[in-house]
Amino acid sequence: MPPVKKDAPDDTRRTMSGIPLEPCYGPGHLEARGWDPATKLGEPGQYPFTRGPHATMYLGKPWTMRMFAGFGTPEDTNRRFKFLLEHGQTGLSTAFDMPTLMGYDPDSPRSLGEVGREGVSVATLDDMRRLFGDIPLDQVSTSMTINAPAAVLLALYVAVAEEQGVPTAKLRGTLQNDMLKEFIAQKEWISPIRAHMRVIRDMLAWCTRQMPQWNTISISGYHIREAGATAVQELAFTLADGIGYVQLGVDAGLDVDDFAPRLSYFWDVHNDFFEEIAKFRAGRRMWATIMRERFGAKNPRSWMLRTHAQTAGVSLMAQQPLNNVVRTTMQALAAVLGGTQSLHTNSYDETYALPTEEAATLALRTQQVIAEETGVANVVDPLAGSYFVETLTDQVEEAAWEYIRKIDAMGGITKAVEEGYPQREIARSAYEFQRQVDAGRRTIVGVNRYVSEGEDAGGEIPTLKIDPETERDQIARLTAFKAARDPAKVATAIAAVRHALEHDDVNVMPPILDAVRAHVTLGEICDQLRTVYGEHRDPAYL
Amino acid sequence: MPPVKKDAPDDTRRTMSGIPLEPCYGPGHLEARGWDPATKLGEPGQYPFTRGPHATMYLGKPWTMRMFAGFGTPEDTNRRFKFLLEHGQTGLSTAFDMPTLMGYDPDSPRSLGEVGREGVSVATLDDMRRLFGDIPLDQVSTSMTINAPAAVLLALYVAVAEEQGVPTAKLRGTLQNDMLKEFIAQKEWISPIRAHMRVIRDMLAWCTRQMPQWNTISISGYHIREAGATAVQELAFTLADGIGYVQLGVDAGLDVDDFAPRLSYFWDVHNDFFEEIAKFRAGRRMWATIMRERFGAKNPRSWMLRTHAQTAGVSLMAQQPLNNVVRTTMQALAAVLGGTQSLHTNSYDETYALPTEEAATLALRTQQVIAEETGVANVVDPLAGSYFVETLTDQVEEAAWEYIRKIDAMGGITKAVEEGYPQREIARSAYEFQRQVDAGRRTIVGVNRYVSEGEDAGGEIPTLKIDPETERDQIARLTAFKAARDPAKVATAIAAVRHALEHDDVNVMPPILDAVRAHVTLGEICDQLRTVYGEHRDPAYL
Repeated sequence: MPPVKKDAPDDTRRTMSGIPLEPCYGPGHLEARGWDPATKLGEPGQYPFTRGPHATMYLGKPWTMRMFAGFGTPEDTNRRFKFLLEHGQTGLSTAFDMPTLMGYDPDSPRSLGEVGREGVSVATLDDMRRLFGDIPLDQVSTSMTINAPAAVLLALYVAVAEEQGVPTAKLRGTLQNDMLKEFIAQKEWISPIRAHMRVIRDMLAWCTRQMPQWNTISISGYHIREAGATAVQELAFTLADGIGYVQLGVDAGLDVDDFAPRLSYFWDVHNDFFEEIAKFRAGRRMWATIMRERFGAKNPRSWMLRTHAQTAGVSLMAQQPLNNVVRTTMQALAAVLGGTQSLHTNSYDETYALPTEEAATLALRTQQVIAEETGVANVVDPLAGSYFVETLTDQVEEAAWEYIRKIDAMGGITKAVEEGYPQREIARSAYEFQRQVDAGRRTIVGVNRYVSEGEDAGGEIPTLKIDPETERDQIARLTAFKAARDPAKVATAIAAVRHALEHDDVNVMPPILDAVRAHVTLGEICDQLRTVYGEHRDPAYL
Repeated sequence: MPPVKKDAPDDTRRTMSGIPLEPCYGPGHLEARGWDPATKLGEPGQYPFTRGPHATMYLGKPWTMRMFAGFGTPEDTNRRFKFLLEHGQTGLSTAFDMPTLMGYDPDSPRSLGEVGREGVSVATLDDMRRLFGDIPLDQVSTSMTINAPAAVLLALYVAVAEEQGVPTAKLRGTLQNDMLKEFIAQKEWISPIRAHMRVIRDMLAWCTRQMPQWNTISISGYHIREAGATAVQELAFTLADGIGYVQLGVDAGLDVDDFAPRLSYFWDVHNDFFEEIAKFRAGRRMWATIMRERFGAKNPRSWMLRTHAQTAGVSLMAQQPLNNVVRTTMQALAAVLGGTQSLHTNSYDETYALPTEEAATLALRTQQVIAEETGVANVVDPLAGSYFVETLTDQVEEAAWEYIRKIDAMGGITKAVEEGYPQREIARSAYEFQRQVDAGRRTIVGVNRYVSEGEDAGGEIPTLKIDPETERDQIARLTAFKAARDPAKVATAIAAVRHALEHDDVNVMPPILDAVRAHVTLGEICDQLRTVYGEHRDPAYL
């Protein structure tokens, strides 16, 4: 292989991760690296899954079109869910508001001004019931973007399904529940990391037995990427998180093949078209190796990296907002050619506000045009064999392994996160990217080049307005909900949750489920976590 | 190779040209066809040019962003030209109105209601001067979509350049000038085909000597495709047209290597993403073979297929018009991955009217995002080696050769066109496509699936309005222009054009150039063609 040009002066001659590019790739590039399709690719649906987790991929089942949605009251979001299902969406994905994400009820002083603003407000069984009103939970798969209070939201979902007569074992969907990436990038936590890891461990054990069709953790690169990581860093840190969760389950005495098949991934899809495709392909190959070689998993389903993907929110620009339709189309195509199982396409207006129905529909139509008009889903892993794509897949993989080896040497991902290592690497990349943009060495159309003056600079597009009554309404409903409870039952249920949190060998999921059935609220359960484990503060602001 | 499944029941398991698809392609598919990268690919910029006409492709020179534009008066279009240049467009492309395309002056009864409506009105030296006012013709490359009266428009352009002090030899650009495809598909003719072929022959000879940087004929698949041809038919019939023009030059005694380097191509880019990429790559390989093997061309520049591309107008839908941004993005990407030299991206509002400035800007931004944000132009022919793309490239090529052999057997393309053969094949494909759409076997998002009711069905987007005074203004200017002429000079110039048309051995270009310098109009020159050769009528309506 030609030597790596470390000093290539032009950033555009590298991938966004900084991998230097040759002008042209031929068979010699693959020969020089001893690349063998039998070992590097194999067949789709077989180890090492480079070509996809399933043998027939989209011919067997198109990817799930899963648009992240949530705002206002549960009724508001329920209407948007139905609107999207009517327009051909194939899975639900729930965005919660900041209070819910942080484990506070709407009536908490910490929730002021935030209820229903950037997602839907859900704190009680009543809220969850309204959120999924008239949506039969045995017929949809539901994703919930919730982390620190994930156990509570899962319990609420299970309880609403019970009311609908749907057995827990039949529920299909995904809980994000990835606290490592919260500490790396997103910073939505309640207690210190080891407290959250303990709860996740209990959920792994409980879900393995109770929810065989449910993805317990969606190991998420998305927020890591959005915080400024490169594709290689996203891949490496997220797989390292995955290793962390598997180790957690194994250390808890679970058989890896019992829980690993229900772990799934969540990738960002940014602008660098071929590097993104390479990331999806390299990720599958790496995870297969990790699971088979490192953890000795025997079940091929444990080896498979299945992933949701979302187009890059940070790539959307406020200037010339319709350019975002172009970006999202390119990113969506990269995810599909990379072999995603599920996809959210951002709406072009999301730099201004939550998407309007019109913008969300266009984003969904983007997926439908790709799926049904362009023929790209007709052939499995259509880029396989490309000298460039295969070389780049190898290179992305090699660079990601290097990070994983470093993290292993630090004693694993939880330790590395506590020491701030991935956080610093990401900050460095974010700074470098911004430097490239500021210096004009990386073009952003409409921002640092092709800038328009006047009315076509954007800013006049219609945006979604959240009803200002939402917060008052949610608080009123919460007050009424609490007033109608049996206080003795509530106290008993809360005490049981607390007992479990205080005893490492008592699984916390059953008492949380009992608590939500007894109308204990999200905030009340999360208060127990705060009490038992303490609150975590960002070390950067200590 | 696995046997071709002739009876594949599902149209979506075939390309849009009907080539059956395997679920997955691996190294065995290439081995089975004895595919050898050394002969099938070679290096970029070298025979057979599969990987591109130039060694460094977009690294050396990005594709030309050339937005087709024209409406109203020459001043209207001049303003749009300048607007596009200011927004980063890199080449001009002129759309003429129907009277101009048919060789009529604005004051002809045949022009009524059409002046400036679907393109710019140009009939005189005065018009051409205003069209390019303040645009230095030595600094832009200009494409003119004009066919039956192409010689007149070329003469006007040369004359305006002379006035600017720009030597004819320095002019860069492209004349469409492809009458074979007019008779196959577009139907904008004046006289019978052999008359037009004679004029084209004279232009080949004249331009070869006078305009070494000018593309004399842009051999156009675009209109063939838009009339309903498949990708394979577009490729085959257009290359057959190319063979026709080269034979015409050779029969006229020209050295093939003198004029062939100035022939260029013009492809449509439709929805079937990989088939379109395969078409561009197969086309280059076929043309290289045709020129070297069939015509014995020695100059590598004669072997190179250089092409302009335009996203598919017929793929744009009136329903949910913003979906067209997604379609155009996908098509533009296919053209870039296929290795186009120049690209027009359609505006999303073109099913309603000529594009507004805002819509045309978004279409240009689409190219800029692809070129500068996605990294796809950083590597030459990035899909080379892909088992699927290489197999499909071979298959598209094989299917196109079959048509070319049939046309050869008929005695060549002019004969085949006179017998209506390509026309019938295209009509059959158009019918088949419509049948698939009507039966729901081919999805068009927003049209036969995912149909929206009410306000988001489109129809409320802003559209470009042509000033209703345009026609009266153009006629008034024409009248004044004619009144100011020297009638004796005009008569002499017209007689010289007529003499050349009547004498096969007198090149018609010099007298046409003299005529436009003497202020003879487009209509007056085309009248000579009508008088000498007669008018052609569509055999379908005889």
